[in-house]
Amino acid sequence: MTQTDRTDVATSDVAALDTLERHLFAHNYALVDIMFNGETIDPPKGAAGRGEAMATLDEEHHELLCSPETGALLDRLSQDDTLDGTHAAEVRVLGRDRDQEASVPADVAADFTRLTCEAADVWHRAKLASDWDSFEPYLDRIIVSMREIAGYKDDTREPYDVWLDEFEHGTSRAFYDAFFSQVKDCVVPLVAAVGEKGWQPGRACVEGRFDEEAQWALARDLMELEGVDMDAIVLSRTEHPFTDSVTSQHAFIASHVYPDDVTSNVFSMLHEGGHAMYEQGVDPSYDYTCLKGGTSMGMHEAQSRFFENYVGRSEAFAPTLLATIARRFPERMAGVTPHDLWLATNRAEPSLVRTEADELTYPLHVVIRYEIEQMLFAGEATAADVPGLWADRYRGYLGVEVPDARHGALQDSHWSNGQIGYFPTYALGSAYGAQFMDTMRREGMDFEGVLASGDLAPIREWLRSRIWCFGRAKDPDRIMLDATGAPLDASHLTSYLTKKFSAIYDL
Amino acid sequence: MTQTDRTDVATSDVAALDTLERHLFAHNYALVDIMFNGETIDPPKGAAGRGEAMATLDEEHHELLCSPETGALLDRLSQDDTLDGTHAAEVRVLGRDRDQEASVPADVAADFTRLTCEAADVWHRAKLASDWDSFEPYLDRIIVSMREIAGYKDDTREPYDVWLDEFEHGTSRAFYDAFFSQVKDCVVPLVAAVGEKGWQPGRACVEGRFDEEAQWALARDLMELEGVDMDAIVLSRTEHPFTDSVTSQHAFIASHVYPDDVTSNVFSMLHEGGHAMYEQGVDPSYDYTCLKGGTSMGMHEAQSRFFENYVGRSEAFAPTLLATIARRFPERMAGVTPHDLWLATNRAEPSLVRTEADELTYPLHVVIRYEIEQMLFAGEATAADVPGLWADRYRGYLGVEVPDARHGALQDSHWSNGQIGYFPTYALGSAYGAQFMDTMRREGMDFEGVLASGDLAPIREWLRSRIWCFGRAKDPDRIMLDATGAPLDASHLTSYLTKKFSAIYDL
Repeated sequence: MTQTDRTDVATSDVAALDTLERHLFAHNYALVDIMFNGETIDPPKGAAGRGEAMATLDEEHHELLCSPETGALLDRLSQDDTLDGTHAAEVRVLGRDRDQEASVPADVAADFTRLTCEAADVWHRAKLASDWDSFEPYLDRIIVSMREIAGYKDDTREPYDVWLDEFEHGTSRAFYDAFFSQVKDCVVPLVAAVGEKGWQPGRACVEGRFDEEAQWALARDLMELEGVDMDAIVLSRTEHPFTDSVTSQHAFIASHVYPDDVTSNVFSMLHEGGHAMYEQGVDPSYDYTCLKGGTSMGMHEAQSRFFENYVGRSEAFAPTLLATIARRFPERMAGVTPHDLWLATNRAEPSLVRTEADELTYPLHVVIRYEIEQMLFAGEATAADVPGLWADRYRGYLGVEVPDARHGALQDSHWSNGQIGYFPTYALGSAYGAQFMDTMRREGMDFEGVLASGDLAPIREWLRSRIWCFGRAKDPDRIMLDATGAPLDASHLTSYLTKKFSAIYDL
Repeated sequence: MTQTDRTDVATSDVAALDTLERHLFAHNYALVDIMFNGETIDPPKGAAGRGEAMATLDEEHHELLCSPETGALLDRLSQDDTLDGTHAAEVRVLGRDRDQEASVPADVAADFTRLTCEAADVWHRAKLASDWDSFEPYLDRIIVSMREIAGYKDDTREPYDVWLDEFEHGTSRAFYDAFFSQVKDCVVPLVAAVGEKGWQPGRACVEGRFDEEAQWALARDLMELEGVDMDAIVLSRTEHPFTDSVTSQHAFIASHVYPDDVTSNVFSMLHEGGHAMYEQGVDPSYDYTCLKGGTSMGMHEAQSRFFENYVGRSEAFAPTLLATIARRFPERMAGVTPHDLWLATNRAEPSLVRTEADELTYPLHVVIRYEIEQMLFAGEATAADVPGLWADRYRGYLGVEVPDARHGALQDSHWSNGQIGYFPTYALGSAYGAQFMDTMRREGMDFEGVLASGDLAPIREWLRSRIWCFGRAKDPDRIMLDATGAPLDASHLTSYLTKKFSAIYDL
């Protein structure tokens, strides 16, 4: 083969890669739009048609990514050292996506999809009826299937390690064991000390009725305040808040407001706005490719929790937050001080439900799930043991009694969806974020000054240039090293929690 | 080939047809969802990504339908007399869809798409600036392209005939010439007589401010009153009302409300509800196939205008309509009689803008477009002549002076989109519907009694069983013959208009 021939082949391979990316993008776009409408506006009778359309588009997406032709193309391109950086990153990320999908036999994958679809439906009814028994056999079957699938993906590692890595690239039990051990050593005594203190800050200023339409206006104000590009998002209404995107110019946010819980709206919007800014901050030249979007679930949570907690629940930002709420609710906020608002939104109190937990007790909810998931994968427990394990751990870590399965092991949908190994990513987010915050300070940013100014541009620019802009082209462990000069170190989080809650509760 | 072999081939061909339909369905579903979001909620910056995704999905759809394999499959199946009725209808309709798409060379089709995309953008700005000159060259280029494309589609017919047939199967200039001649003979003298009368009914009861949120509640009430299955629709907000659907269980309606124009909302919702009921009334076994949905634009307008005009603007239904409006606006409707409401919503008055025209003058707006379109295709006029032709005809038919292009030839988007030959389908709808109404009466339905009862079930059941259930499996001309025993006859419409407006204006 002459040099000219080789160049021609390489050029046509790059063109083929671009074409593949365009078709994958179109399928992703369609699936995100359809899913978003399913969560926000679709009529009750539309579910079957939506399922049929999504299954077919999913199948086409799988065929595009996993075909032998795509495999051969990616193999050739991965050996082509003339590729530009973007195309080289695409080949790497697509290759990994392909490996995750293609290694599992189609019939095994299809059986697992059917099992989890059925299990999700059973779980939904089981939760409403607080009936663990009806869900129990499904959890056992899901564990069996996930062990089998993990074997196809990588039979050199333990199944739970395979799944942890699937949900957050680069993680394993060894990684999380060390991480959670450090978190528990900090949080468990702090929670105990708060309980012994027997005092809780008042919440009168955020309790009672806040008009729903004014809350929706506040929701937009909060996102603007954070720095979300409002011309590049849609905000719709749903029960469970979430954010997704199709390009850097088009993010989807769905949220709710409750007339009797304004703080749920305030912190949901700061949280979802953080997700949206990550999606908006990715290099726009990655649009229409696999590099678009956040690099991992944990890194995404790092952005959302950064704005929810390190900004939104800080004392320095409280005057700005108070003024923003007061614009929409002047009568309710009359006479409230920033300190009142800050205390009211930082009450640390053991509770039963993860999604409603405060900043201090939240990691313990995740620890409990992580421990039980390990036992299930290791065969040390079966689904029948879960309610007992759950009750023991909630009593032990949080001192609360689990009254029923609805407020216990049936509260989350993740297990029914086959997302066993996913919960730990939630806890990572806070730790990543604390390390970013400390790095900003170490590099000389007057972090509290920025918060107090109400103009978050310096924080956004730091996160954009170190994290957001890279999209999926950089893995989370690489981001930590490049952005902070060190791997993840949970002591940033534990120091933060110790300092903050010791001050609030005078420990 | 043995009998067994032939059966095997036929079975696998049917399976291939089912698979093809499922993929076409998934693409249609995605395109409708994406388009709907584009019209209702997408952020301003999302347009480019949406266009990229839609173009790629369109391309895949074209490839699925127009590939040589699909052509060969449809050829084999069209000669298979063992097919069941549904599959036979699918082969016929898909074959026609394919012929319309596949006969045009890909580069010609792509050039036309690019031209109309650009023209639509130019038109939008031209309309705002009331600047005909900037749009003029695009209209000439579109005519040239549409002549060329018509030649590929069917070079045995005149281009305008090809396009009329494209937008409403079975129509031609000969058909519409006879139709519009009859309509003009009725409407032109009636409009003149109303003008000479110099009297107009009062509109005080529907003028002034009606709260927007209460209007949205009224919008849902009206659709329920008509008989729309509210568990199988989504109602969203947009500037230009429209209805679409993905299955019989999932229709999309987008509409607007204006605080100072409650009748716009009332008749838009009755109209869009008619479209939605047609989509919902299609045989559910046609879901996920090409037979889903209305058979033509004209037949769709027949359903929407039936509920808007023959139901909604009837005197017999006025008490029910009044009571429905009064539920949401009790103070505004206090003291209003059904007769007041009926008169107020039936004022016939020549105007400049088609979409705001009343029931009597509406067909003349269509006639004007039909006449100018013929001249453009025949080369008897170029785009430069259009403003003059437009002004002459609005003066002649309606007695109004066109002040500017924005309220003249730039008011509609259709020409810029390449929909030249589309307007006539709007006028057909009223004529189809009048013939259905007369057939219901002839068969013994107490039509006014049904309207007066407020329970429209007998009307819905008639339309469902004669029209809706067949979806695209029956062409409009066949529907007219089977449902009414005769081809379309515009005298049903002209008699209706003559009787109704003679009574109102005492002519």
